[in-house]
Parts: sequence; C-alpha cells; structure tokens
Amino acid sequence: MAQKLNKKPVTGMKDILPEEMAIRDYVCGIIKSTYAEFGFTQIETPCVESLENLNCKAGGDNEKLIFKIMKRGEKLKIGEAREENDLADGGLRYDLTVPLVRYYSAHAAELPSPFKALQMGNVWRADRPQRGRYRQFMQCDIDILGDASNLAEIELILATTTTLGRIGFKNFEIRINDRRILKGMAASCGFPEDKYDEIFIILDKMDKIGKDGVRAELAEAGYETDKVDRYISLFEEMEQAADPVAYCLERLGDHIDTEVAEGFKEIISSVEATKGDHFKLVFDPTLVRGMSYYTGTIFEIAMPEFGGSCGGGGRYDRMVGMFTGQEVPACGFSIGFERIVLLLLESGFKAPGTENKTAYLLEKGLSSDKMGEALKAAEAERAGGRQVLVVRMNKNRKFQKEQLTAQGYTEFKEYFKEALK
Amino acid sequence: MAQKLNKKPVTGMKDILPEEMAIRDYVCGIIKSTYAEFGFTQIETPCVESLENLNCKAGGDNEKLIFKIMKRGEKLKIGEAREENDLADGGLRYDLTVPLVRYYSAHAAELPSPFKALQMGNVWRADRPQRGRYRQFMQCDIDILGDASNLAEIELILATTTTLGRIGFKNFEIRINDRRILKGMAASCGFPEDKYDEIFIILDKMDKIGKDGVRAELAEAGYETDKVDRYISLFEEMEQAADPVAYCLERLGDHIDTEVAEGFKEIISSVEATKGDHFKLVFDPTLVRGMSYYTGTIFEIAMPEFGGSCGGGGRYDRMVGMFTGQEVPACGFSIGFERIVLLLLESGFKAPGTENKTAYLLEKGLSSDKMGEALKAAEAERAGGRQVLVVRMNKNRKFQKEQLTAQGYTEFKEYFKEALK
Repeated sequence: MAQKLNKKPVTGMKDILPEEMAIRDYVCGIIKSTYAEFGFTQIETPCVESLENLNCKAGGDNEKLIFKIMKRGEKLKIGEAREENDLADGGLRYDLTVPLVRYYSAHAAELPSPFKALQMGNVWRADRPQRGRYRQFMQCDIDILGDASNLAEIELILATTTTLGRIGFKNFEIRINDRRILKGMAASCGFPEDKYDEIFIILDKMDKIGKDGVRAELAEAGYETDKVDRYISLFEEMEQAADPVAYCLERLGDHIDTEVAEGFKEIISSVEATKGDHFKLVFDPTLVRGMSYYTGTIFEIAMPEFGGSCGGGGRYDRMVGMFTGQEVPACGFSIGFERIVLLLLESGFKAPGTENKTAYLLEKGLSSDKMGEALKAAEAERAGGRQVLVVRMNKNRKFQKEQLTAQGYTEFKEYFKEALK
Repeated sequence: MAQKLNKKPVTGMKDILPEEMAIRDYVCGIIKSTYAEFGFTQIETPCVESLENLNCKAGGDNEKLIFKIMKRGEKLKIGEAREENDLADGGLRYDLTVPLVRYYSAHAAELPSPFKALQMGNVWRADRPQRGRYRQFMQCDIDILGDASNLAEIELILATTTTLGRIGFKNFEIRINDRRILKGMAASCGFPEDKYDEIFIILDKMDKIGKDGVRAELAEAGYETDKVDRYISLFEEMEQAADPVAYCLERLGDHIDTEVAEGFKEIISSVEATKGDHFKLVFDPTLVRGMSYYTGTIFEIAMPEFGGSCGGGGRYDRMVGMFTGQEVPACGFSIGFERIVLLLLESGFKAPGTENKTAYLLEKGLSSDKMGEALKAAEAERAGGRQVLVVRMNKNRKFQKEQLTAQGYTEFKEYFKEALK
C-alpha cells in the first residue's frame, strides 16, 4: 500500500490510553454496583436514533450538533437532494434521555413500575473542538419512570451522592430547586407567564454576573423597575432567612401549590436525615437548569475541585407523552462521568489492579518442558486472581525489567534455557 | 406535540432489556478480570473513524456495509456532490482491528512492548436485517502487538479458553491452522501462487460441501485433475495420520519453513501441556478464515451448542505497516460476545445479583420520622452490599409484592403510616 493511513483519531474525538481506561473502568464499577444496591437495573439503547426523534425539541441546542448518518442504497438519492434531511435518516444520539423515553414507551409492558434505569453510554455532539471537551463522551444517567411521588427525587439524590462518596468525593454540594418555585417567584412579582423562560435565562447567570448584573439585564430587557426590584429583593430576603426553604414557600403563598411545597420540604428533610457528611444539600432558588423539559424538582452537583457543575437532573413528567400520548411521571439524575475521570486522572489516582503485578520472562529457545513449567506456574497464579504477564526475555533484561516496573510489575520470575552440554 | 414520535429502535438495531443486560454485564466482568490476569490492558477508540481508514481494504466485505457520517457545516456541499464520499467524511467502525492498528500506530511510543490490548466495544454494519443478527453489536478482541514469537499465540489461546471456561462453556474446540501451511499445501500440489486465494475460498467450504464438493468446485474452476486429486488426498492422508500435525509438516518438506513448522508444533504442545480439559485443541488443515490480512497462525472457536464459529483470530503482521510504513508483528483473538450472551440467555441463565433482593414498601403519608427510619435502614443494608429497592406501597399490596417477587425480590419490609389518634 503506497499511501499511509491517518494515525490520528477523527477531529474532536480521542483514543483512551490504558491508564485513563483503568480509571474509567474503576469508576464504572463503583457506579454499577452502587446503583444496583439502590434497585436500578442497567439498560442500553442503540447509539443511532431516527432523526425524527432526535429533532423532537427535547434536545434543545444539542439538536444543532447531531452527527447525521447517510441513507444507504436505493434510499440515497444524491441528485434529488435539496437539504440535509433528504440525505440522512439517522443520527448519533446527543444524550441518553430521548433514547430512554423512547425505550420506556416501547417496552413499558415488559418493565417493572416504577422502572429504575441505569444507562452508561457514549453520546456524540458536533461541538467546536476545544480543550478538554470531546465530540464523543460518556454519559451516566439514572432515571425513575412511573413514580410521581417525591420518593423518586429522594432515592435519586441518595444514590448519586452515595456513588460520589464511594468514588472518593467529599465536600461537594447538591443544589436543589423546583421549576414550580421558580415560576411562583416570578408570578409573585407580577411577571407575565409568557416571559418566564426569558427571565429564567437571565436569572441563570446569577452565579456569574451577581444580583446587580441580573437586575441590569432584566431592566435592559424592558421589565418594569418595581417588578425587578421586588424579584431581586426576594432573593436577598431568602439569603438572610434562617430557614430559606420555609421562608420561600411561605412567602410564595398562593403562588405555589401546598402539596408541591410540602413535597419539596420532605425531599430536603429526608435526604438530610439519611445522608452522610460528605456533601451538603443546599436550596438554591436561582438554580434554573437549561433544558425546557423539566417540570418540577431540579438539582445540580457543585464540585469545588471542578469549579462548576458536575452533573444534574430533575423531574420531566411530560416527555413520555410525546411518544405514547399518555404522560408518565419521570425523574432523572446524570453524573458528569468525564469530569470525574478527569479529576481522578489529574489527582494522580491509580486504579486498583494496575500495580503490584507479576511478570514472567522466558528466554528464547526454552525447551518444551521448561515452557510448559512456566505456563503452568502462571496458570496457577492467575487462578488465584493474580495478574501475570508472560513475555519473551529481551536481550537487555535489565532495561526490560525497568520498563515493566514502570508499568506496575513488582515481581519477576525468569526462565532460562538449559546450558548446552 | 401533535405528532407522536417513533417508539421503535432504528431498523436492525435493538434495545437491550434488563435481563439480557445483566447477562451482558456479567460476561463483561469475567472477560475483563480474566484478561487482566493475563496482562491485557483495556483501551478504547472512538466509534467514528475516517472513511479513508475504514476503506483501507483490511475490512474486506465489511467496507460495503459502512454507516457513513455526513460532513457538517460549510464542508457539506449538497449541490456539488456527485457521489457518497463527497458528502461523508467519517463512518461508524465495522470492526475493532482497523481502529486498534491506527491506535497502536499513533501511540506506540507511550505503550509497553509487547502491547497486550483488550477492546470491548460496539461495531456497526449495515447488513440486511435478519433474525438474530443486528446492525449494532458488541465485539470483544484481545491483541498482542510487537511480539513476533509464538508466545503471543499461546497466550491468546490460553487467555481466551480460560475466559470461556469461567463463563461456563465446556466441550468446545479451538481449531488451529496457519496460512503458511495452507500455502505450503497448495504449493506442494503444484497450484500457481496467484490462485491461492481462489483455492482457499473453495477449501473454506469443506465443512459444508465435503471433500467431494471441494473436488468438484476446483475442477469446475478449471484446475487440472491430477493437482486437485493430490490436494484432496493430502487432506485424506492427514485425517488418517496418528499425529496429523507432524505428518503434515513432514509431508510439506521444503514447502514450509522449518522455523514456522517448529513454532506451530510448539504452540500446540504448550497449550496441550497447560490447558484444562474443558476444550480440545484441534489442528484443522481446512481452516481458512476469511480476512485477507492474516499472515500466519489462524484459529477459530467451534462451539457445539451454537453449531458454528463463536470467534476466531490469527496473526496479521503487515497491518501496522499500512499506517506507519514500518511493520510490527501482531496477533489477535476475538470472542463472539453476542453469541455467548444469546446462548446464556436461551439456556435460562440468571446473572448473579438479579435474585434474592429486598424491597421496602412505604405507605403514602408516612411521617418524616418513619420515612427517615426506613431510608436509614435501607442505607445500612446497602452499605453491606445488599440490593434494596425503596418504593411507594401500592393500594393493591399483594399484587405489588407478586410483581416484585417475579423481579427477584425475596424479602419485604413494610412501613405503614401511624393510625390517626
């Protein structure tokens, strides 16, 4: 073959080297076993979904980033094509939520109710390539379908925080809010309902631009000063309240349903009563979460080591209805798998099983008997669970052992051929 | 949303239900831990590869089955496009071998030598949909790069057969041959070298059409009767020989390199000396293996339960050279992951951890204290590794418990709200 092939992975995607892979596998193991203890069962959907489903509006801006798959055979009519969707019939999934909802819609009769699903899988987004962000990355979601009660939220938060604790994270925060609290607050200040989304997009910037910034942007967007002032002071009052949740819910009065308010308080008190001290649960009335499909509680993981969100989720009671016409309550929590792996990798963490291994060095020209002896000894050690590498001995044995030591091999056995008689 | 979305997965791909997923995960676990004991390290490459690499001829017929990914943004020029490759720049990988070789070419300096890689990942082929064959399926490959010696073959066979044994398979066969034996046999009968591939394609049908069928097809293809007769009788002689390997290698004489012959015998004697009795190692001079990239030893798993091949592999010493211009010896073994899962699923196998679980049923309206008590009890059981499902109690509690029993829940704890005073 005259022309050399391309050694690099495609733009924006990456090869995973053994050291990172061992960490990924270790984290996957903890995630799977912990979520299994909480009654979640793992499922999988194809990486390819129909373009129609991917463009269902639940994907938000991700719908602009789809890797589209070309039609094949007779269906591909290049001459007649006028736009992209004439040429493509599928796409790589950009998240695990749309596929989950399709899956549940198709298989609900075969699944328990409530259904607690764990999904770990790659998703693809044709984002502009940038440092630390890749076009293929792993998502890790748990979802509970068919449970309208706040037990879903409680279990999702406990399962997620237990998992993060077992991976080794301390001192993180779970921020919690409810879309209905957000709406109640906007309503109580007199903002019109059709402007809520616009207002929340501005409010979402609070952590970056502060209260004054939000006030300025709301004014700039044309909202009356008295409403904006009332809105901002509501957040100030809550900051100063001894019990912000109780204060907020009382202050909202008729602008929030009593059952919603009680349910929200119960989530907080139940998690507080059960949780370990490796994280704080914090009511954050400025938490918005971007996706338009959320209908109730929303939450986010704030990780000081990362300086930002490391996962999140919430309740989305209306998405199953898009597939079946019949609504099913649903709630999910996604942890930032790639960020967790990056944090561990940068901290110098070594996954268990990558150290303290044994290497057998076999000189070339070993007799059949000696070869068999070495292989049998390796077999016996492996049967006891030990990692044993069997390799040919190099001429420079010292250098070979130095290299193996760097790879985590600490014990060596050497098999030399018999001296000529 | 007026129009309902499509509930089915895309054509030819499948959703994986919890029962199958548990088996897949169980098999993956055994594969990973066993191959780790043999010194294999896991790696991963992106699911998308450049079309140029996918069309490098090493993919054989699979190159006709690529799911192509459309160019994006300004690069997509629909009006100017004349053929498929004007519109697409990437494709979903159809195997794990081409990506592995690209990966090794890119990262050899950062990897140990020899490099023992384990890959488990999905591949995609736009095959005509048919029962039991899907367009997305998992492949599971181990490969050793940078080891020219037959220790690579020995370790690959021992690792694969140990893994299959631990999954629970008994009485299977590993069939082994060598492309250089195949060539030597053809040469010793006087067939011209440029016809070997055609002859091997006919020979490959031996298990289906028998010796008479092969004889007839070779005659039909125009080969001289005396050569064909000599070829067929060679196979007959080997069948009757006490030691077919020794007979074959001796019979080939100058048509096979002494070192190759000795190396082949050593693979067989070493595996025989080490292996358990759960499988047979069988020299099969009619074994061809389709892929043109094989250069030496080839092997295949024959599983009686499946009535066919359940994986295979061989030596391919010239593929790395396609990327780097410099050849690196390579040898790999792939196990038929999907077939193994199917066999376990059909046998009624239940994955560990899917039975003997505990469910807590919480009546609606439980006080905060009782709720906290239940959650704390669940937390304690989970910390001990037990699977505990916490769910709302349904009105029809008996039916709920029946359903949970069917899902593997054998213990129940019920939390009722306090009676009104």
